[in-house]
Amino acid sequence: MKKYLIEHEWSIIEEGFDPNNHEVSESVFSIGNGHMGQRANFEETYTGASLQGSYMAGVYYPDKTRVGWWKNGYPEYFAKVLNSTNWIGLKIVIDGEELDLYQTKVSEFVRELNMKEGYLQRTFKAELQDGKQLKVQATRFVSIVDKEVGALKYEITPLNFNGTLTTTSYLDGDIKNEDANYDEKFWDPVNTWIKDNRMSVTLKTKKLDFHFCSTVETQIFSNGTKLELTGTAKEAIKYASLVYDVPLTEGESITIYKYAANVTNRDYDTDQLETVSSTVLDLAVSKGFDQLKQEQAKGWANKWLDSDIVIEGDVAAQQGIRFNIFQLNQTYTGEDERLNIGPKGFTGEKYGGSTYWDTEAYCLPFYLATADQKIARNLLVYRHNHLEKAKENARKLGFEKGALYPMVTMNGEECHNEWEITFEEIHRNGAIAYAIYNYVNYTGDKSYLGEYGIEVLAEISRFWEERVNYVPAKDVYMILGVTGPNEYDNNIDNNWYTNRIASWTLEYTIEVLDYLKKSDSVLYQKWIDKLELKDEEVNQWKDIIKKMYYPIDDERNVFLQQDNFLNKELIPVAELDKKHLPLNQNWSWDRILRSCFIKQADVLQGLYFLNHEFDLDTIKRNFDFYEPMTVHESSLSPCVHSILACQLGYKDKAYEMYLRTARLDLDNYNNDTEDGCHTTSMAGTWMSVVQGFGGMKIKDNRLYLNPFIPGEWQSFSFKVVFRGARLLVQVDQEKVTIINETTTSVDLSVYNNQTQLDGKATVEIAL
Amino acid sequence: MKKYLIEHEWSIIEEGFDPNNHEVSESVFSIGNGHMGQRANFEETYTGASLQGSYMAGVYYPDKTRVGWWKNGYPEYFAKVLNSTNWIGLKIVIDGEELDLYQTKVSEFVRELNMKEGYLQRTFKAELQDGKQLKVQATRFVSIVDKEVGALKYEITPLNFNGTLTTTSYLDGDIKNEDANYDEKFWDPVNTWIKDNRMSVTLKTKKLDFHFCSTVETQIFSNGTKLELTGTAKEAIKYASLVYDVPLTEGESITIYKYAANVTNRDYDTDQLETVSSTVLDLAVSKGFDQLKQEQAKGWANKWLDSDIVIEGDVAAQQGIRFNIFQLNQTYTGEDERLNIGPKGFTGEKYGGSTYWDTEAYCLPFYLATADQKIARNLLVYRHNHLEKAKENARKLGFEKGALYPMVTMNGEECHNEWEITFEEIHRNGAIAYAIYNYVNYTGDKSYLGEYGIEVLAEISRFWEERVNYVPAKDVYMILGVTGPNEYDNNIDNNWYTNRIASWTLEYTIEVLDYLKKSDSVLYQKWIDKLELKDEEVNQWKDIIKKMYYPIDDERNVFLQQDNFLNKELIPVAELDKKHLPLNQNWSWDRILRSCFIKQADVLQGLYFLNHEFDLDTIKRNFDFYEPMTVHESSLSPCVHSILACQLGYKDKAYEMYLRTARLDLDNYNNDTEDGCHTTSMAGTWMSVVQGFGGMKIKDNRLYLNPFIPGEWQSFSFKVVFRGARLLVQVDQEKVTIINETTTSVDLSVYNNQTQLDGKATVEIAL
Repeated sequence: MKKYLIEHEWSIIEEGFDPNNHEVSESVFSIGNGHMGQRANFEETYTGASLQGSYMAGVYYPDKTRVGWWKNGYPEYFAKVLNSTNWIGLKIVIDGEELDLYQTKVSEFVRELNMKEGYLQRTFKAELQDGKQLKVQATRFVSIVDKEVGALKYEITPLNFNGTLTTTSYLDGDIKNEDANYDEKFWDPVNTWIKDNRMSVTLKTKKLDFHFCSTVETQIFSNGTKLELTGTAKEAIKYASLVYDVPLTEGESITIYKYAANVTNRDYDTDQLETVSSTVLDLAVSKGFDQLKQEQAKGWANKWLDSDIVIEGDVAAQQGIRFNIFQLNQTYTGEDERLNIGPKGFTGEKYGGSTYWDTEAYCLPFYLATADQKIARNLLVYRHNHLEKAKENARKLGFEKGALYPMVTMNGEECHNEWEITFEEIHRNGAIAYAIYNYVNYTGDKSYLGEYGIEVLAEISRFWEERVNYVPAKDVYMILGVTGPNEYDNNIDNNWYTNRIASWTLEYTIEVLDYLKKSDSVLYQKWIDKLELKDEEVNQWKDIIKKMYYPIDDERNVFLQQDNFLNKELIPVAELDKKHLPLNQNWSWDRILRSCFIKQADVLQGLYFLNHEFDLDTIKRNFDFYEPMTVHESSLSPCVHSILACQLGYKDKAYEMYLRTARLDLDNYNNDTEDGCHTTSMAGTWMSVVQGFGGMKIKDNRLYLNPFIPGEWQSFSFKVVFRGARLLVQVDQEKVTIINETTTSVDLSVYNNQTQLDGKATVEIAL
Repeated sequence: MKKYLIEHEWSIIEEGFDPNNHEVSESVFSIGNGHMGQRANFEETYTGASLQGSYMAGVYYPDKTRVGWWKNGYPEYFAKVLNSTNWIGLKIVIDGEELDLYQTKVSEFVRELNMKEGYLQRTFKAELQDGKQLKVQATRFVSIVDKEVGALKYEITPLNFNGTLTTTSYLDGDIKNEDANYDEKFWDPVNTWIKDNRMSVTLKTKKLDFHFCSTVETQIFSNGTKLELTGTAKEAIKYASLVYDVPLTEGESITIYKYAANVTNRDYDTDQLETVSSTVLDLAVSKGFDQLKQEQAKGWANKWLDSDIVIEGDVAAQQGIRFNIFQLNQTYTGEDERLNIGPKGFTGEKYGGSTYWDTEAYCLPFYLATADQKIARNLLVYRHNHLEKAKENARKLGFEKGALYPMVTMNGEECHNEWEITFEEIHRNGAIAYAIYNYVNYTGDKSYLGEYGIEVLAEISRFWEERVNYVPAKDVYMILGVTGPNEYDNNIDNNWYTNRIASWTLEYTIEVLDYLKKSDSVLYQKWIDKLELKDEEVNQWKDIIKKMYYPIDDERNVFLQQDNFLNKELIPVAELDKKHLPLNQNWSWDRILRSCFIKQADVLQGLYFLNHEFDLDTIKRNFDFYEPMTVHESSLSPCVHSILACQLGYKDKAYEMYLRTARLDLDNYNNDTEDGCHTTSMAGTWMSVVQGFGGMKIKDNRLYLNPFIPGEWQSFSFKVVFRGARLLVQVDQEKVTIINETTTSVDLSVYNNQTQLDGKATVEIAL
């Protein structure tokens, strides 16, 4: 953990340049628009440690699997998020000396990520070796309005000299993924051209035939006047550049603009890419930097309108939650149903893949409550689109029917390769079923069930049907050899959470079948036919539901995380010498496995998901038993605990858990932010506020709120989009105020008092 | 499985050349002498598929670990057996055309591994493109008398032409390991020289500073007369060669001799290597090929005197068992206590490392019964020498005391990297303790206990002491999170075998302490002081012995392989569709894990080791329960089952299991012999005959025999070295004859009738 960023309500700010922080800042100050994104690399040459990264959503590479010992069933490749053409590059040479903040003396350095308006800005003074001083201001963004457009403005003011600026504006596609398994490059050249002030590089991936064309135009202005310069063109393989010589006059600014249009054959015909790219670029250039930036600010204002959370009296907390919301909105906009929410968004390339169960378990609620419901729906459709691959995956592992969704995927195929996770962390299938329930429960959009949902539910149910193991001696069904959400316990029998979510899936699938049968018998029959679903199969599901085995500790009356959990020595984390923490950096894997320590919510994950099934006493007994043994070494852990702690009235615990998630990356809590931000866990932070402190739940088409405010805060407020309405919920130490910002009325329950909140109405409850 | 070798009692013979069999033959026809060895590569150029391999015992490389996902505690490297300088190389060019059996027309090809006399021979006729025919006979061996010496004789006879032979005799040290994790070369050049007919290449490893010098002399004879030729020297990095032009006359043979002296700085000072190598070479050259070969035959006759097994009436079985004995004797001679028995001997480089628990569990009995007892003792001393590393290994995994021997090692450090094995297959520690018991029980050499044994036993006991887990609720000790000998069950709790061998180690350690206390109180006190062994510690061991938990199935009255074994669906292998076998090539890992199918003896391994603790009924119940679920997918599995089947009188099962091991590599049973032979399992084959069909056991300083002969055999006989005597045990369908070939008398029990067999005496028992 290292705190060096300035606290501010709307911006992330770094003052003074320290190369040791640079890679962390490159992650934190990343910009993205759902279609593309990049780390906060410098435009000019930087020879210090840096992870240069530009990423195009959905463009990936199947990197050959690397394992120590092959196990049957491992995937052939690991899909890597592809580092691609660097379009921001500007070499800045002044009278022969190159600007390089690792070498050059720098002062008054300020880097700012303006989250309100969605841009990255950097200002500094540099002193060259011969004493020449200059001021630089660099601003850039990727547009959330014109998704394929990026723009940057680089302003140089010589402070004490006249001279010559030689600037090389370049496009560099000769890029490597830092995490390539065998140190290979993934891109092949297709075409490069330079004409007037434009240049273009088209690449294709060595496998899968992704084509990516980046075209940029460079413009140079002096004191507001565009210079009619002819650059010197230089081409190389996968590289294009234009070199300009510009006279510098003391006190007068030279401004370089660079506009980029980045298009891929995911969206256009391959042979049209260069044409499309030029057309997109024409539009961007015609708008100009200032107009693009204004549109950007407006676009972000709209995002904040739906999703902002305000915390008063705690700037660090305010900054933390806004940073999380900002990054989520930069990563996934929901407009492209082929996309999903990668674990690092556009902020790094570690882990690869783009889709984990994080999406369903943690991210979906954020998008449900802060955006148009079609965005959440697209997240579900994404999995429906992968259903055939999930069926193939089940076949590959030897199942005769059903679907097993992958642990990590890019295109629906599994790409993780640790047997205890890839093959055994099958509870992920349950989360995908649960997300359907969650979506329908939240939106009331039951049409999804008949359109797509039932097919996914039935195939997942079939997987569970085959995966359970009937034990005649006990007349029960068991699920053997799994890894639950707590990955610190592997290949265990009867993980309570997995057994419960499996059985729940069967229950919900049957419920949905009944609903379809009643509501639309034609549609129902269509699915019965298509799925070839027999009564015997549904009866078998019912038998499994009836006879599913759940390990329980009779003495403590808690659900057991797995059959043998009580064989372990039960010790609270508090009694561990601090030197052992984090366990995953200090203990060997076997020691972790045979210990009682829990990485993230497991039984409690079930109590969170299926909260309505359990009374407070049950939740309390289990929370009191498990939380003390939980080390929260997954970034996804504290949020669930924070929410349950709120429910149980454990105020201090709730606030403690909230703090563990809110500033995870800003304060580099796990000392790994240089690899990129923990994007999916950011949705968990949002959940902690809205579902935890706000106590929000949906039941029977009614929005329940049960807010409490941590003593540390003056007030907090959040917005919730629900059934066409947008509510602003404000909580301070005296009262709760709920304002319906729209004209749609909402069925509400606050502290279990049911009411209807009309359009534009406000309700106030004293605390 | 593919059978193409000719059955013969004393030789392995391949007739006719088929490139598709070549890599398998390269493994099978390998030669070695404990100090060095090589695959049966051709001397001349061969451009077809081939795994070129020359190996020096104890010379290895720490190849950087390759894993998919790093786990804390993984070793930094995997020790690779090092492929090293190829000294046999001879380019054969006749009038401009190179001899290459992949290109050249070849007939009358015969390859023979003469196991009786220990050499490899190959004869063939070749017809060149222009119709020239020649006959070649190539013979070579690595001497078991002069360990650093290799010699080859390559005789060419032109059958229908006169011409010129241009032969390049070379030393090539620019060698790669085929299984290098990152495709690196492991050798750096040190020095190369060529003088007269000698050349020398010295290399060193890029890490660890192993130096290896190979010096060779080439001699060329024509019809028995040495030709005084001056070769043309050619040097390159890590390479030296001499090119000779020799006139060929129809019908007259040219014979090329190549003598090699291969020395390493494991045995000599680094700066002396070239000198030593030349001196060794002088001696070899002065003896000449024929004398070296005669000495080789004599040396092998001595080996066979102690270790031969004769099977009459079944040539395939005879050849199989001799092949196994031959390979064992080629791999490990016991003269160098720093060495051990690598899983592939000198026949390939797969798996790496040199020492697995195979050594203690399977190989030790062979060397105990067929060689001087110092050889078996050296295998024990090897582990004692690694004790400090084993203690470090335990510390690395978080244990405060005790020693955990590695799963795979070269120098005492762990180099395996699968958590379920590296960290969890800890039963290996028990086998190392058991080997001490086994050695003392067999030899009666109790001095080993006071000299080395007790230290190893105490440190292993301490490991178990810390590794067990006391469960207050049940007042028992458990061992959680292990992998037993059956690697098809991972991270299980209370593997019966592991629990039993752990407790047994404690029992035996206490027994040895008691023995030392009574027999030599000074020595005893020395160890108590050195080990800082307190009474409390020993009392703790006693408590663990008393309260160790053993999972049992009350209903069937069998020991349970692990706590949750009965959750599994219990199906006999016989009911599996054959298409599923072998499981490890057809099932994903999770499917294997949650199935009941067993890779190799687990509970039964315990019943084999601690046979004296269990009555026949117990053994029978467990055998009857487990064997039907065992797929024997470890080459180490069938032998234990064969031995127990013999004990239970299951004749057919015993013979079936024997057949599975005896010709494993000769018939390429697992379709992987091209990677090298399954060397350690060969000792298991020997055990099947001697301990299985021979029923040999040692108890109370008495040799027990309980032979039975499979109906398929006329007779079989084996030799056993026991307490200074050598017995020849002959069994035919009518009688058992035991001949004491030495003058030392032996306490014997045949079919439970105790007797004393005097020196040179014979006893005959009718069947």
